[in-house]
Amino acid sequence: MTLVSALRAVVGDDGLLVRDEELYAYEADGLTLHRGLPAAVVLPRDKTDVQRLVRVCRAHGVPFVPRGAGTGLSGGATAIEGGVVIELQRMDRIVRVDAQDRLAVVQPGVVNADLSKAVAPLGLFYAPDPSSQQACTIGGNVAENSGGPHTLKYGTTTDHVLGLELVLPDGTLVRMGSDVGAATGYDLVGAVVGSEGTLGIVTEATVRLTPIPESVATMLGIFDGVVDACRAVGAVIGGGLVPAALEIIDQRTINAVEDSRYAAGLPRDAGAILIVEVDGAAGSVAAQVERIRGFAEAAGAREFRVAGDDDERARFWRARKGAFGAMGRLAPDLYVHDAVVPRKKLPEILAAVCEIGDRHRLKLSNVFHAGDGNLHPNISFDRRDADERVRVIAAGEEILRTCVEAGGVITGEHGVGTEKRDYMRLLFSEDDLGAMIRLRHAFDPERVCNPGKIFPATRFCVESDPKARGYDEVPLS
Amino acid sequence: MTLVSALRAVVGDDGLLVRDEELYAYEADGLTLHRGLPAAVVLPRDKTDVQRLVRVCRAHGVPFVPRGAGTGLSGGATAIEGGVVIELQRMDRIVRVDAQDRLAVVQPGVVNADLSKAVAPLGLFYAPDPSSQQACTIGGNVAENSGGPHTLKYGTTTDHVLGLELVLPDGTLVRMGSDVGAATGYDLVGAVVGSEGTLGIVTEATVRLTPIPESVATMLGIFDGVVDACRAVGAVIGGGLVPAALEIIDQRTINAVEDSRYAAGLPRDAGAILIVEVDGAAGSVAAQVERIRGFAEAAGAREFRVAGDDDERARFWRARKGAFGAMGRLAPDLYVHDAVVPRKKLPEILAAVCEIGDRHRLKLSNVFHAGDGNLHPNISFDRRDADERVRVIAAGEEILRTCVEAGGVITGEHGVGTEKRDYMRLLFSEDDLGAMIRLRHAFDPERVCNPGKIFPATRFCVESDPKARGYDEVPLS
Repeated sequence: MTLVSALRAVVGDDGLLVRDEELYAYEADGLTLHRGLPAAVVLPRDKTDVQRLVRVCRAHGVPFVPRGAGTGLSGGATAIEGGVVIELQRMDRIVRVDAQDRLAVVQPGVVNADLSKAVAPLGLFYAPDPSSQQACTIGGNVAENSGGPHTLKYGTTTDHVLGLELVLPDGTLVRMGSDVGAATGYDLVGAVVGSEGTLGIVTEATVRLTPIPESVATMLGIFDGVVDACRAVGAVIGGGLVPAALEIIDQRTINAVEDSRYAAGLPRDAGAILIVEVDGAAGSVAAQVERIRGFAEAAGAREFRVAGDDDERARFWRARKGAFGAMGRLAPDLYVHDAVVPRKKLPEILAAVCEIGDRHRLKLSNVFHAGDGNLHPNISFDRRDADERVRVIAAGEEILRTCVEAGGVITGEHGVGTEKRDYMRLLFSEDDLGAMIRLRHAFDPERVCNPGKIFPATRFCVESDPKARGYDEVPLS
Repeated sequence: MTLVSALRAVVGDDGLLVRDEELYAYEADGLTLHRGLPAAVVLPRDKTDVQRLVRVCRAHGVPFVPRGAGTGLSGGATAIEGGVVIELQRMDRIVRVDAQDRLAVVQPGVVNADLSKAVAPLGLFYAPDPSSQQACTIGGNVAENSGGPHTLKYGTTTDHVLGLELVLPDGTLVRMGSDVGAATGYDLVGAVVGSEGTLGIVTEATVRLTPIPESVATMLGIFDGVVDACRAVGAVIGGGLVPAALEIIDQRTINAVEDSRYAAGLPRDAGAILIVEVDGAAGSVAAQVERIRGFAEAAGAREFRVAGDDDERARFWRARKGAFGAMGRLAPDLYVHDAVVPRKKLPEILAAVCEIGDRHRLKLSNVFHAGDGNLHPNISFDRRDADERVRVIAAGEEILRTCVEAGGVITGEHGVGTEKRDYMRLLFSEDDLGAMIRLRHAFDPERVCNPGKIFPATRFCVESDPKARGYDEVPLS
């Protein structure tokens, strides 16, 4: 039986895409710089389908790539070495909600924001909120350990996953973790969350739900420059406050947002805008707002607004979360970086990042999770322009080197994927990488599950056990 | 060269214990039920010593067991299969503290409470606070993913470890994680924390420090019965509050405490005492105290006390944290269980646990992290009494089965160790265990690093790869 017939036998005609015009939609994820055309895309309906698909791929010697909504920004869902994309959007059921124990059991294709909507009547929400939350799925969030603006207080996906059901790369179905949150034995849930789809395919996740806070206040601080805004962030954190979010958008982003359908009436001449959100009991929120106003004004805020109602709050957030969409207007492609640096070094690193962008003649803007030190330098470009593409890559490498030299790391919430795999050695020795490769090899010795991600693509440090099979550098188209 | 001479060549005479009377102190950890005499105990001074010791053990074909203060309660630091104990208490330096980035780099032998003391002048503390925190070490906490009364708000050790330096079972030194907290690539830190010393030996940990809260209030609710106290816990959580701690001690524990040097003036006729602590901004704390008072009284508290000052607060906590010591007065040995159950089922499970203890004619008392659903049924016994020992083990198994049937797990914060390894199948299928064994095998294929822990000791599910070597059941003395 051919690969395609064997896949069709599992998912039927309506669960199989093989025509070129269908496959082009799967050629990349949110990272349009790296591309790979799959041989087929399959849409399983349940865990048994996933197990059977994995076994079909193995029998035919082709790799497989799990994919959610394809909103990832590091190439994690791209079939960079070809093979079969296993798209999980049809597995989109909320299986069970337990309001008293505050958990939900969901299939991987449940859209992030839909889960919060579904449990809102119970006074609960799902805390991790990537900017793509209207589209991205829980399965993809688990693979990438997605964060979001509220990471500062609530943590990333890993802090909200209690248990997982996973189809291993050899087709075995295993469960890990528990409803009560404690890991007995090894914390495999911790190892799988953020493993970028390389250790297996999640078919069910048990996630923590969080009580909707009694009161929320959202504030905008408007600054002449980004250094002042960073100083306000330092003061808020140094003052012992833990806001739900502490975000900064820079002037170029402000203008892109104001030009777009996300326009929020932001002052176009501001150097930076700080968005602060605090939540909790009503009295505590009011007191925090006044302290934050003080910190912002002391740091030189020329204006400080507190959202008067939910509509205004939502408008502030639409501006922030729509920033990536708005920047999509600046050029056909967008390359979103994702470094994390020590918070105290934010001002100097931001200045360096802007200088790098200017020197390479690129449209570079910054939206970032300032409270976490998680930078998102965004480069708007046209990938059809070969010269610009070279400059985008050169600037990206300089940015990452700058962040690592300052004590930072190369990804905070988007993953390594294909994007940053060749920069892993900036952070890790061969022995450090070797420890990760041991884990990879333990779960996928034949390197069939989402190959080409995380690990450097050179013969000196191979993703799989070097003794197990040879490995050559994979050219990125 | 003999094993002993080779060890002496690394650590010198003063770093080596080989005489029987010295080794007996290492025959068990806090779990006195399971014992194993090591061939030698060595005390390395730095990471290079650890690497050399590991290589010496491998060259001589003997297993090695990392050990901190030996306060663990599941046998994790016991040389159950003999071999060499690598005791890390001499590596007790706080290497670096960064107040602005709120982290400390520590060696594994740093005592938990000493770290908080050292950083208190900076307005910071190390949040995980096991009851043994005056003695237990950060290295041991990392191995067991230790919790403590404040887990409810602050999480367990895994939530506070940013990075690790680890000597792998083959002697390779690797680093994982980062100062900024984000895991790039696989989250190996997450996998190693809680791996009970089976994946390598931690030689340095980078841990998160937490700002000392502006205000703290500690309350005692005195109840006629444990069911009422549990109802108060449910009401507090259901009301959306997140106290720092929500602890219950039962009547037998109250009396043991009042008989001991930890006496806190607790009413001996109370059925249960609920200890609640809230922290945060002063105004928010005061408001929470009043809400909690309301919940406690509605649940039938006959008295509700708020600590008037730090001395009284400390006395409340001494009673709670000294409970285990106090119970040590009841009999020569103490077996502390550690199951986690869905919070809403606490009352019925506690009743079942007490019935089991009574039926087996055992002295069973309960101190537990009620907010987390983390039970600690404590059995006081004399291990020299063979009949009583059999009843202790039988009751323990019944307790674990009861908790698992209610949707719980067999350990919350003490680890599996030797104690519960044969109960792992209550929770996991062979395939589930197989996934953990893959990880074990990836790091320690020869099963030399702390063997005999976590994995069931039968031929059907072996800790190491069954193809790699045979494995027979290990009798527990």
